[in-house]
Amino acid sequence: MSAIENQIENVVDLILEDYRCGRDIDLMEISSQPDKDIIIEVIEKLRRLVFPGYFRDKTYRIYNAKHNLSVMIEDVMFNLSRQIAKVIKAEEPEEKAKALSLEFLRRIPQVRAMVQTDLQAAYDGDPAATGKAEVIFSYPGLFAITVYRLAHELYVLGVPMIPRIMTEYAHSITGIDIHPGATVGKYFFIDHGTGIGIGETTVIGENVKIYQGVTLGGLSTRGGQDLRGKRRHPTIEDNVTIYANATILGGETVIGRGCVIGSSAFITKSVPCCTTVTLKSQELQMKPHGNCQICPDTFEA
Amino acid sequence: MSAIENQIENVVDLILEDYRCGRDIDLMEISSQPDKDIIIEVIEKLRRLVFPGYFRDKTYRIYNAKHNLSVMIEDVMFNLSRQIAKVIKAEEPEEKAKALSLEFLRRIPQVRAMVQTDLQAAYDGDPAATGKAEVIFSYPGLFAITVYRLAHELYVLGVPMIPRIMTEYAHSITGIDIHPGATVGKYFFIDHGTGIGIGETTVIGENVKIYQGVTLGGLSTRGGQDLRGKRRHPTIEDNVTIYANATILGGETVIGRGCVIGSSAFITKSVPCCTTVTLKSQELQMKPHGNCQICPDTFEA
Amino acid sequence: MSAIENQIENVVDLILEDYRCGRDIDLMEISSQPDKDIIIEVIEKLRRLVFPGYFRDKTYRIYNAKHNLSVMIEDVMFNLSRQIAKVIKAEEPEEKAKALSLEFLRRIPQVRAMVQTDLQAAYDGDPAATGKAEVIFSYPGLFAITVYRLAHELYVLGVPMIPRIMTEYAHSITGIDIHPGATVGKYFFIDHGTGIGIGETTVIGENVKIYQGVTLGGLSTRGGQDLRGKRRHPTIEDNVTIYANATILGGETVIGRGCVIGSSAFITKSVPCCTTVTLKSQELQMKPHGNCQICPDTFEA
Repeated sequence: MSAIENQIENVVDLILEDYRCGRDIDLMEISSQPDKDIIIEVIEKLRRLVFPGYFRDKTYRIYNAKHNLSVMIEDVMFNLSRQIAKVIKAEEPEEKAKALSLEFLRRIPQVRAMVQTDLQAAYDGDPAATGKAEVIFSYPGLFAITVYRLAHELYVLGVPMIPRIMTEYAHSITGIDIHPGATVGKYFFIDHGTGIGIGETTVIGENVKIYQGVTLGGLSTRGGQDLRGKRRHPTIEDNVTIYANATILGGETVIGRGCVIGSSAFITKSVPCCTTVTLKSQELQMKPHGNCQICPDTFEA
Repeated sequence: MSAIENQIENVVDLILEDYRCGRDIDLMEISSQPDKDIIIEVIEKLRRLVFPGYFRDKTYRIYNAKHNLSVMIEDVMFNLSRQIAKVIKAEEPEEKAKALSLEFLRRIPQVRAMVQTDLQAAYDGDPAATGKAEVIFSYPGLFAITVYRLAHELYVLGVPMIPRIMTEYAHSITGIDIHPGATVGKYFFIDHGTGIGIGETTVIGENVKIYQGVTLGGLSTRGGQDLRGKRRHPTIEDNVTIYANATILGGETVIGRGCVIGSSAFITKSVPCCTTVTLKSQELQMKPHGNCQICPDTFEA
Repeated sequence: MSAIENQIENVVDLILEDYRCGRDIDLMEISSQPDKDIIIEVIEKLRRLVFPGYFRDKTYRIYNAKHNLSVMIEDVMFNLSRQIAKVIKAEEPEEKAKALSLEFLRRIPQVRAMVQTDLQAAYDGDPAATGKAEVIFSYPGLFAITVYRLAHELYVLGVPMIPRIMTEYAHSITGIDIHPGATVGKYFFIDHGTGIGIGETTVIGENVKIYQGVTLGGLSTRGGQDLRGKRRHPTIEDNVTIYANATILGGETVIGRGCVIGSSAFITKSVPCCTTVTLKSQELQMKPHGNCQICPDTFEA
């Protein structure tokens, strides 16, 4: 054995030894865990079910729409059930997982009805949108909302872990983090979206518009695991607009319907309905540069 | 047919039925729509054309640079034309699409000349940069700017939808959202970049530096589709620096040349040239903790 | 030759000509540059080494854990060494690269010991976490920290370019930008995370919690390359919590242990230990809408 082979062998032993510490990260039984890649494939196939005319797939042909759809749904059913069976606690996890998957699939028409309203809201709300196809193909807000609406149904059915893997996949693509536990009404519009965080117990009404960097969060997370299951995030009523980087915190905070929350506002108390909240005009300091080199004629101070 | 097969069959029928509602999302003719995956492949190949020495490609060999380049350009030409043909309105869409693709390809040297200045600006501006190769390989700002500069040429040529799919691809990778309609001068530097949003009608001069979380946006989007085509986003003149999380809004807002805009400033009015704008020092409340456990000696209050 | 072929030929010549300008972007020798795709494959394999039970791999079987691990480590060793050899300056770059790779691999147990503390901190700190597996599978913070901890070891060993490519890969997935040069103690928790930027010379103690949009940055980057190697970013001592969108700047700024920094605070000076810093309650303007249409009964003003 050469010197280098020997040294690699030593590294292997070192790491194997390290796997024997019994910590959470030392788990070795891969088969007991869900498969993140499969879950992401499932969510991508579900997006195709939602928007059947906007995705090309090398595997499926379109000679017979029904046949294609059957193949796709059997595929989702098979893979989703297997992943659910790994994460639920039940006497017969496989039977239970199949029942949950079927119930989930039956809800797809309801999810599609919601997504159609979200698409309409995005098109109506953005002067830069040249058409609805552009929104479907390129708007990260609609992407994140679609994945959230699908994941939320699994969350409501009590499936652990998988809904969050789905919404975190959308988060990684869009920078928009909607916890699958949040409740969101129809005609939901997210513009730009990067940096948005919407917590687990948030409740959002209909026809709400949210811009990039908005946080709908908890007031403090010092309580850690003790706060689990408690209402920690705000309620946003119908027809509210929340501009970029506003922060709204707390489980008792209610933003009344029709409110407009200005950019960068920081809110931890309820706001009555039909109110515009803006930062009192921020005091800015304006200082001309003394020895400006690029526009010497403008300032001589 | 087993019970489960029967139930799946029912789900298939349920969803097929749902596709017959005639809504936007019920479109089934995949062939009439552009193919997002192909458009992303095209933009990745265009990035290789911009930086020929920084991408390895399993498909192309480098024995003969000219031969390789020909194969690559024919590939881009073929795929881009086909996608353009699907989205333009023209009597002979395929002929028109070919002409547009050719015109676009002819502009690549101009795009490259701009990108070289952006690379220089990134290297000069960031003390953490160890070399220009590091910037090309790892800086999200240069990635987003390169994709924007390519997409912008298609936008200027009047191609709908495809430029936005390209810049939203870059947005998903980098968190930097530059609308292809924006106009940006040379030596443009974006640092970190996550959360930046630059609207469709923004005009940016030369030698401008922008940090993460900056919004160059519209004052209000209440007008929705009625505002389409109108100037809604600010003008940033030459040699301006805009620090993290500043927000500059409105189509009549002009930031004069040489200005420095401080972190988190919120600006909706024009600023004369050579001016430093900072938040009047934010009032902070500092409260020592009464019963601090970790440094008991420091505070006894 | 048809008209179109002729025109494509002209474009090829135009671009080839453009490659002869001798600028940085005109480099054509692909083989002298590292391969970003390979580096990303390496970091993904390293993540598998860190969490052996949470990744399925089609290539490796698990009949014999030691055999699998050997194959994986030889693979990482081979690919990482080849990439390092391209970026280091040494008399015998290949020998040096092998020695660096081996030294790096030997540090994996230390990295894993740190990551286990980060996992614990994420679970303890987030009431939405249903278990540690959920954190490993779906939390972007743990993803970014794991990649950072691995890349940091290569940075400390003096490997250029590659560590930054690794952390920028994590940045693109998570929106969290941790420079590999930063120093971070154990039990580090990042929640949500999108928009976080942590600069090259930042020093972070143990048990620190950071939320989305936080910048630990330089006061000014006007100095550009002249500032290279100088301390430009803050020190965060043990047990500090920094809430969303706070900005802490400057190489002489020290946030003392036990401090709590409130949302959106902007700090450029040191804060003594055990202090809570919050924005003096932001002045908000609240205006009921005069002619509200949606709740006509509520306001008549």
